[in-house]
Amino acid sequence: MFEFDLIARIRARAATRGDVILGIGDDAALLQPPAGMQLAVAMDTLNAGVHFPPETAPADIGWKALAVNLSDLAAMGAQPAWCTLSLSLPEADAGFVDGFLDGFLALAQQHDVALVGGDTTRGPLSISVTAHGFVEPGTALRRDGAQVGDDIWVSGTLGDAAASLAQWKAGDDIDAVLRARLDRPTPRVALGRALRGIATSCIDISDGLLADLGHICEASDVGAIVDADALPASTALHATFDGDARRSLQAVGGDEYELCFTAPVSARGTVSQLATSMVGAATRIGTILEEGGVATCLRDGSPWSAPAAGWVHFA
Amino acid sequence: MFEFDLIARIRARAATRGDVILGIGDDAALLQPPAGMQLAVAMDTLNAGVHFPPETAPADIGWKALAVNLSDLAAMGAQPAWCTLSLSLPEADAGFVDGFLDGFLALAQQHDVALVGGDTTRGPLSISVTAHGFVEPGTALRRDGAQVGDDIWVSGTLGDAAASLAQWKAGDDIDAVLRARLDRPTPRVALGRALRGIATSCIDISDGLLADLGHICEASDVGAIVDADALPASTALHATFDGDARRSLQAVGGDEYELCFTAPVSARGTVSQLATSMVGAATRIGTILEEGGVATCLRDGSPWSAPAAGWVHFA
Repeated sequence: MFEFDLIARIRARAATRGDVILGIGDDAALLQPPAGMQLAVAMDTLNAGVHFPPETAPADIGWKALAVNLSDLAAMGAQPAWCTLSLSLPEADAGFVDGFLDGFLALAQQHDVALVGGDTTRGPLSISVTAHGFVEPGTALRRDGAQVGDDIWVSGTLGDAAASLAQWKAGDDIDAVLRARLDRPTPRVALGRALRGIATSCIDISDGLLADLGHICEASDVGAIVDADALPASTALHATFDGDARRSLQAVGGDEYELCFTAPVSARGTVSQLATSMVGAATRIGTILEEGGVATCLRDGSPWSAPAAGWVHFA
Repeated sequence: MFEFDLIARIRARAATRGDVILGIGDDAALLQPPAGMQLAVAMDTLNAGVHFPPETAPADIGWKALAVNLSDLAAMGAQPAWCTLSLSLPEADAGFVDGFLDGFLALAQQHDVALVGGDTTRGPLSISVTAHGFVEPGTALRRDGAQVGDDIWVSGTLGDAAASLAQWKAGDDIDAVLRARLDRPTPRVALGRALRGIATSCIDISDGLLADLGHICEASDVGAIVDADALPASTALHATFDGDARRSLQAVGGDEYELCFTAPVSARGTVSQLATSMVGAATRIGTILEEGGVATCLRDGSPWSAPAAGWVHFA
């Protein structure tokens, strides 16, 4: 009987949508996909002590568990619609579930996402979410379309989440602005939608800029050169880290959930305008090259190896 | 870099289908739902030490992780199509993943299910699967349609999985036939599909017959009376348990993954024929009553309280 009270709590608060025929409470949800659209499906898991510090507030865990999945849909140019949630908890802790839902459902509401089903089980704290979105056939932003000569862009700023983890690991006071970027990342859904037909490839930055850009290079069979000095930094990051430390946080730090994408030089004006209106800004940080497979980095115009990524990831 | 080798192993073996536009390897899968169909989506998680004994073979864990989800689709009358898999492992154990995939993909192949994406993370052993299927609008088997006077049916036999757990908990030798029913349940997909338009409600037996029938009663606002002496038992169960012990295993034991469904008396012949051809047999075990909400049990014609469910569940 572990789960029934928890399911009832979740069910009572989950919003619905017109295309949800049957939500939480049966063996499966019944959903009506819109005619002619493709379905984009992403599934990401957060484990306590691996993907977030143990003392993270339940509402922040809830927000982030959905955000990382919506970020995947954003990186495909898909419009989020439905999600399912599997929540494993050491004990049937109603207080945790209520807090978790505060964050999870606040973000769901922002994007008109209906929580339609899932599972609650006993086990070490772990959250799996599957997110479903719609995208017009042939328009999805994939990793495999980058072209030689394309600009490489990144939305927003980079390094805040990693900086907050670095402070946490060092036992320092954690800057509240930086910590908010770690705990409550913003999935760039509107920007992803707007980039359909403009960007040639796209990925969201979860593993770190160079690693994720490397995935684009591998899938597109191209290379990339990135100028570490061009990486956009927030005011909070400028105030707390400088020099190689800052560039490393930005180049290899994970958990950013900004979009890294490529676009032809001819699209510079359009991309700038869209990004400015939707996320404040996007920044050109490099160029796609012919040499296959990897993203390399410049600093002061010379090849630069960012310090290993390990210390700027939580675990 | 925990996950990349594991994802490559999974990607190399995952089959595809014509309606999978983009499978494993991007931020999200891209899928083309068939025109005019509804989507059924189920998500279930198995945690080590909670949902299966720790020494369970990796291939059996893989089979079961998919089976419990396909069983949910079967209980809706949906045709399985796609799944995503999130696998949390204490370490990047390629041998475990290979074994796990042996079982998972063998069952996927039986039902033409494509593994299209997911996640691999570090953490305590835990497996979440989201399964997607198709069902014609208005035909899904729900929990809320049972009518007063309907027969209550169960497919196959009940009690084997619980009996195997009882032997395991007692430290006895575990009967191999019983154990196979625990480790490799058979999702009743074809029967679920065939019951569209015939059954008035349906659920798969994961929590135990009386608990799951109770879910139908609650959703349908009816009551149920079940004859414990009518519950169908396998030869292996007859050979190992008798009397109250056997009836208890059958009435409250979980992890059976047979279908419990209701149908009008007029459908008896049709149901018998379908079930015989598809799963060997289905058995009438009781009747839907007016009194609301719960399933009650008879033994030798008198009200009978089956012993508490705890000892026949793994944890």
